Amino acid sequence: MSPKMTTELLKQLRQVMKSPKYVQEPVQAYIVPSGDAHQSEYIAPCDCRRAFISGFDGSAGTAIVTEQHAAMWTDGRYFLQAAHQMDSNWTLMKMGLKDTPTQEDWLVSVLPEGSKVGVDPFIIPADQWKRMSKALRSAGHDLVPVKENLIDTIWTDCPQRPCRPLITLDLSYTGVSWRDKIVALRAKMAERKVLWFVVTALDEVAWLFNLRGSDVEYNPVFFAYAVIGMNTIRLFIDGDRMMDPGVREHLQLDSTLEPEFKIQVMPYGSILSELQVVGAGLSPKEKVWLSDKASYALTETIPKAYRYLTPYTPICIAKAVKNASETEGMRRAHIKDAVALCELFNWLDKEVPKGTVTEIIAADKAEEFRSQQKDFVELSFATISSTGPNGAIIHYKPVPETNRTLSVNEIYLLDSGAQYKDGTTDVTRTMHFGTPSAYEKECFTYVLKGHIAVSAAIFPNGTKGHLLDSFARSALWDCGLDYLHGTGHGVGSFLNVHEGPCGISYKTFADEPLEAGMIVSDEPGYYEDGSFGIRIENVVLVVPAETKYNFKNRGSLTFEPLTLVPIQTKMIDVNLLTQKECNWVNDYHQKCREVIGAELERQGRHEALRWLIRETEPLIRVQ
Amino acid sequence: MSPKMTTELLKQLRQVMKSPKYVQEPVQAYIVPSGDAHQSEYIAPCDCRRAFISGFDGSAGTAIVTEQHAAMWTDGRYFLQAAHQMDSNWTLMKMGLKDTPTQEDWLVSVLPEGSKVGVDPFIIPADQWKRMSKALRSAGHDLVPVKENLIDTIWTDCPQRPCRPLITLDLSYTGVSWRDKIVALRAKMAERKVLWFVVTALDEVAWLFNLRGSDVEYNPVFFAYAVIGMNTIRLFIDGDRMMDPGVREHLQLDSTLEPEFKIQVMPYGSILSELQVVGAGLSPKEKVWLSDKASYALTETIPKAYRYLTPYTPICIAKAVKNASETEGMRRAHIKDAVALCELFNWLDKEVPKGTVTEIIAADKAEEFRSQQKDFVELSFATISSTGPNGAIIHYKPVPETNRTLSVNEIYLLDSGAQYKDGTTDVTRTMHFGTPSAYEKECFTYVLKGHIAVSAAIFPNGTKGHLLDSFARSALWDCGLDYLHGTGHGVGSFLNVHEGPCGISYKTFADEPLEAGMIVSDEPGYYEDGSFGIRIENVVLVVPAETKYNFKNRGSLTFEPLTLVPIQTKMIDVNLLTQKECNWVNDYHQKCREVIGAELERQGRHEALRWLIRETEPLIRVQ
Repeated sequence: MSPKMTTELLKQLRQVMKSPKYVQEPVQAYIVPSGDAHQSEYIAPCDCRRAFISGFDGSAGTAIVTEQHAAMWTDGRYFLQAAHQMDSNWTLMKMGLKDTPTQEDWLVSVLPEGSKVGVDPFIIPADQWKRMSKALRSAGHDLVPVKENLIDTIWTDCPQRPCRPLITLDLSYTGVSWRDKIVALRAKMAERKVLWFVVTALDEVAWLFNLRGSDVEYNPVFFAYAVIGMNTIRLFIDGDRMMDPGVREHLQLDSTLEPEFKIQVMPYGSILSELQVVGAGLSPKEKVWLSDKASYALTETIPKAYRYLTPYTPICIAKAVKNASETEGMRRAHIKDAVALCELFNWLDKEVPKGTVTEIIAADKAEEFRSQQKDFVELSFATISSTGPNGAIIHYKPVPETNRTLSVNEIYLLDSGAQYKDGTTDVTRTMHFGTPSAYEKECFTYVLKGHIAVSAAIFPNGTKGHLLDSFARSALWDCGLDYLHGTGHGVGSFLNVHEGPCGISYKTFADEPLEAGMIVSDEPGYYEDGSFGIRIENVVLVVPAETKYNFKNRGSLTFEPLTLVPIQTKMIDVNLLTQKECNWVNDYHQKCREVIGAELERQGRHEALRWLIRETEPLIRVQ
Repeated sequence: MSPKMTTELLKQLRQVMKSPKYVQEPVQAYIVPSGDAHQSEYIAPCDCRRAFISGFDGSAGTAIVTEQHAAMWTDGRYFLQAAHQMDSNWTLMKMGLKDTPTQEDWLVSVLPEGSKVGVDPFIIPADQWKRMSKALRSAGHDLVPVKENLIDTIWTDCPQRPCRPLITLDLSYTGVSWRDKIVALRAKMAERKVLWFVVTALDEVAWLFNLRGSDVEYNPVFFAYAVIGMNTIRLFIDGDRMMDPGVREHLQLDSTLEPEFKIQVMPYGSILSELQVVGAGLSPKEKVWLSDKASYALTETIPKAYRYLTPYTPICIAKAVKNASETEGMRRAHIKDAVALCELFNWLDKEVPKGTVTEIIAADKAEEFRSQQKDFVELSFATISSTGPNGAIIHYKPVPETNRTLSVNEIYLLDSGAQYKDGTTDVTRTMHFGTPSAYEKECFTYVLKGHIAVSAAIFPNGTKGHLLDSFARSALWDCGLDYLHGTGHGVGSFLNVHEGPCGISYKTFADEPLEAGMIVSDEPGYYEDGSFGIRIENVVLVVPAETKYNFKNRGSLTFEPLTLVPIQTKMIDVNLLTQKECNWVNDYHQKCREVIGAELERQGRHEALRWLIRETEPLIRVQ
C-alpha cells in the first residue's frame, strides 16, 4: 500500500482557498470532515472528499489544510492505516493520545492572527460548528461557511451521486407500518410541543418509511430528507424512484388518504429552500425539532429561538428498540449467517494448510457462502480478513498490496457481516489453523473473559451501556493489557451496522439507557502491532434478566447472543477461565449445536455440520 | 423534628423582593442557592441562608421563592429530611425523579410574562448563571443580579462571618513550600498563556499558602481569596489574623523578598473592586484564569474575551496528587484513626448488649477516642451514627428526636472521620453486635465484593475513576440490588473530606484521570428503606501496579488502602466470596494486625489490641 501523492492536489486546494471565484475572502484553513450532508458514517464515493485529498480512506478522520500544513485527525483504530496511506505532506494527529492537540488548539497554534477557517456548511454538523466556531472566535479567528465545496472544485473525476431503486418492506419485516410510525412520531412532537420534525439521517428516513435503498455501499439507505409536520409529510428524494409502482403503492401516493398522511414528494435539492420557508413562517412558541448533528446549513434555516435540538431524535430512539418482528428477523438473519460461517471455517480448515488461501480469497469465500442464504442483499461492511500482523490493524481491509496468505503459523481474524432482508449481522472470530502459542492463547482467553463479562452481565433497567465497558477490559487490565476501541455499538435491523443511541464504550457519556429490545455488539479485542490481532464479537439482544431480588422494582437486564458461531476452543487456555466462564462457553456452544446444527441439517450441509459438532465439544476445566 | 414555621419569613422576603431599597425593579422570583461565595460544600452558619428561609439544612438544596410559591430542589439523599424540616409553605422538588421539573422549567411554568428572577451574584456559580439565564431569556424572562443578599436583609439575628486564627503548616506536613507552589502555578499559567489566576475556592487558597483555618466546621479553611499574577501575589483576608507573628513569618510578610514573592494582604471585601481594576486594565491576549464555578459576580469583572475558564483549576489538580510528605501524613493520620476506632468498637462490643448506648453516645465516644490521638483537630464531617432503619437514610445525622439505641438485633453503620494536622480520614464500618441474619450477611457480602473489586482493580494509567464505578456494583447487580450514590470521592490532605477533580461515580464524566498519589474513598453500600443500611468505606491511595505485561508502555495503577480498620467477619458469608476475595480480606486483616497492632501496643491500648486480634482472624473458605 503506497501512500497517495498529494503535493499537486494540496497546491490546487490552496489556490481555490484564495480564489474569489469560490470564497468571498481567502480562507487560511479549510476543514474536510469525514461525513456527507447526512452525517453518515459510511458514505457514497462522491462524498469521499477526505480520502480524495489525503489518501486516507478509513471510516473516521478529519483533514485540515492550511497554507503551510496538512493534518489528519483519526482515532486508534486507524493510526497504522492512516500512516500507510498518507504521504509526507500530512501530519497524523493521533486522537486519544495525551499530547495530541485538538483541531481547534492546533488551528490556533498555526494560524496567523485574524484568520478565516472555511468549511462546507452542509457537511459540518451544527454541534461541531458551534464548538469550533466558539474556540476559533475566542482566539481571534473566524469559522466561515464556504458554500461551494472546495474539494469538489478540484475533484475533476468525482463520481455521480447514486440514485438506485428502492426496496419496500412489508409488515412481516417491520412490525409497524410507516403510518403508525408517523403517528408515534407526532405524539412525541406533541409531547415536546414542536410543530415540525426534520429527518436528516439517511437510516432514519429509511426506517420511518419502511423503505430501503442501495445508494451507499453496505448501508441499505437512499439519499433523502423528510420534513414531518403535524399535518404534512414531505419527502425530499431525487430520480424516478418514485415512479416505481411498488413504491407508489407502499407509500399510498395514488390513494385517497387523510391529508395528514398524504406524502408530498419533492426534489432532494429543494430541502434548503423549503426549510427556509418553514423557518421564515414560524410564530413564537412554534418549534422545529432537529438533531444537533444535522448540518449547520439546515440548522441555520431555523431561527435560533425556534430550534429544538436534541442529540438523539425520537426516530433514532424508537428505531433502536426492535419489535417482535424485527427481533425475529434478526434471529433468522443470524442463523443464516452462522450457517455461512460454519461452511467458511470448515473450508478454511481444509484449505489453509495448502497455502493457497489469501485474505482476499477468504473474504470472497465468506461472501460467496453468505450470498447462498435466503434474502441476502449485500455485505454490511467491508470484510476485515486479516492474518498475522495485519490483524493488528483494527479496521484492516485486504487489498492486493497487503494481501497475506493464511497459514498454520499465524492467527487469522475475520470481522464480517451481511445485510439480509430480515436483518443485519456483524461477527468477529479469531482462529488458528495450526497450533497457537501459549502467549496467543493467553491473550485470546483474556479477550474471551471480557466478552463473557459483558455478555453475561446483569444490570438494572436504565443503565447506560458505557457503564459496562470496563467489564470487557478487566481481565486484560489485570495483566497490563488493553485495546484502544470501544466495546460495542448499536446494530440496525436491515439497516446500518453501526447505529445510535446506545453502545458500550468508555468514550461516550451521552448514550441512551439500554432497554429490552435494543441490539448491540460485544467485541473486546487485543492487538499487538506487527504481530497479531484478536477480537471476539457477537451481536447481542438486550433482554430482561431474572434476579433473586428486585431493588426499587427497577427490574434487571442482560444480553442474549444472537450470533451463534463457535468460538475456537483451541485458542482458549481453559485454566485461565473460572468455572462460571467455562460453563458460559459450553452453554453457548450447546446452543450453537442445537440452533445452527438444525439449520445446517435442514440445508443439507453435512460437512459443515460435522465441523460444527467438532468445534463445539465441551471444555473441561482441570481444577 | 418539627418543621420550621416560615409564613412570616416568606412574607418579609416577598416584601423586600419588591422594595426599591434593595432591588432596582421588583423581582418576581428569588433564588437561594446552597453555597457561599466560594461555592463551598460545607458552609459557615452565616451562609446557611437556604436553611434559614426554609428550615431544610441538608448539604445540598436550592430554594426558589416567587410571589405565590416556595419550592425546594434537593436530591435523593435528602427527600425524607427535607420533607420533615419544611412546613406546608414549601413544595419539595425531588431531583432525579422523572416528573420533577428543573428549576428553569418550573420558573417558566409559574412566572407571569416578562418576569425578573433575582439571585445574589456572589452566591451563584458562573456556569449555573449562564445555564439559567439562557433558559429564562428564551422564555421571555430575565435573570438579574441583586447586589444585597435579600435573605440577609430579613435575617435579623444572622451570625457574624467567622474569622478565626490560622494554622501554619511547615514543610514536614506539606512537602512543598508556598513559594514553590506559586512557581509551579505560574508555570501552568505561562503554559496556557494567562497573566492572572483568581483563587476562589477556600481549600485552594489554604493549600496554596500552606495555611489552615477553622472558619467552616469540619473543613480546615478560612475566608479568603487570592489573585496570582506573574509578578504579584494578592491575598484577600480579613481580621487581625495577619498580625500573628507565626503567620507573618510563614508568609515572609516582613522579609526582604524578590518582588514576585511579596504577598500583598488586602481586605476580604475588596476582591470585587480589585478584580474590576484588573479586568479594566487588560490588553488583547491578556487572559485571566478562573474556575467556571467561580461566582458570577467575580467572573463578570473580567470582560468575556479575556476570561479563561476551566472546570478544574491547576491548583485543584495539583492538590489532588499528594506528595511523599502528604502521603506519609495521611498514613499516620489513618493509623491514629484506626486506633481510635478499635477502641470504639471494643467498647461497643461490651456496652451495646447493656442497652445503654444510643447513636449519639456512640458518635460522641468515637470523637472522644479520636481526640485522644496526636495532632487531632476536629471531625472531618458530622458523624453518621445510625442503627436499624436509620442506617437506610444515607446522610443521616443522629439528633435527639431520631436517636435510637444500639442493640444486638440491628445492624449499626458508622461513617465518621477526623481532621488531624497530618491528614484527613473518612471511614465507614457496618457491624452487628448480635447474630446477623443470613439475608443481612448476604447483602453485606455483596457490598464487600464490590468494595474489593474496586480496591483490587488494576487499570491503565490515565483511566478516569468513573470507569471503575460498575466494578463496585457488579455483585449487587447480579442479584438485582444496587445503591443510589457514587462509589468514591477525592479526599484532601488535612483539608476538605470531599475534593475534586477525581472520584468514582457513574454520575460524572468530567473527572480527571486517576494518577499515582491521588487519594479517593471506596464506599459501596446497600440500603433497605425502613430496615437497615450497609456501607463499607476505606480511603485508598492510587499507586503504581506491577503487571505481567505493559501495553503501549502506559503503566498500570491500583489502590492501596490507607484505612486499616477490621471489616467485621461475622457479617461475611464466606461461601459467597471467591478465593481471591477471601485472600484479599485475609491480607487486609493481616496488615491491620501488623500496622495498627503495633501502634495499639505502642500506645499501651492492650484491650483494644486483643479486640483487633480477635476481629482479624483469617477467614477460611470451604470449597
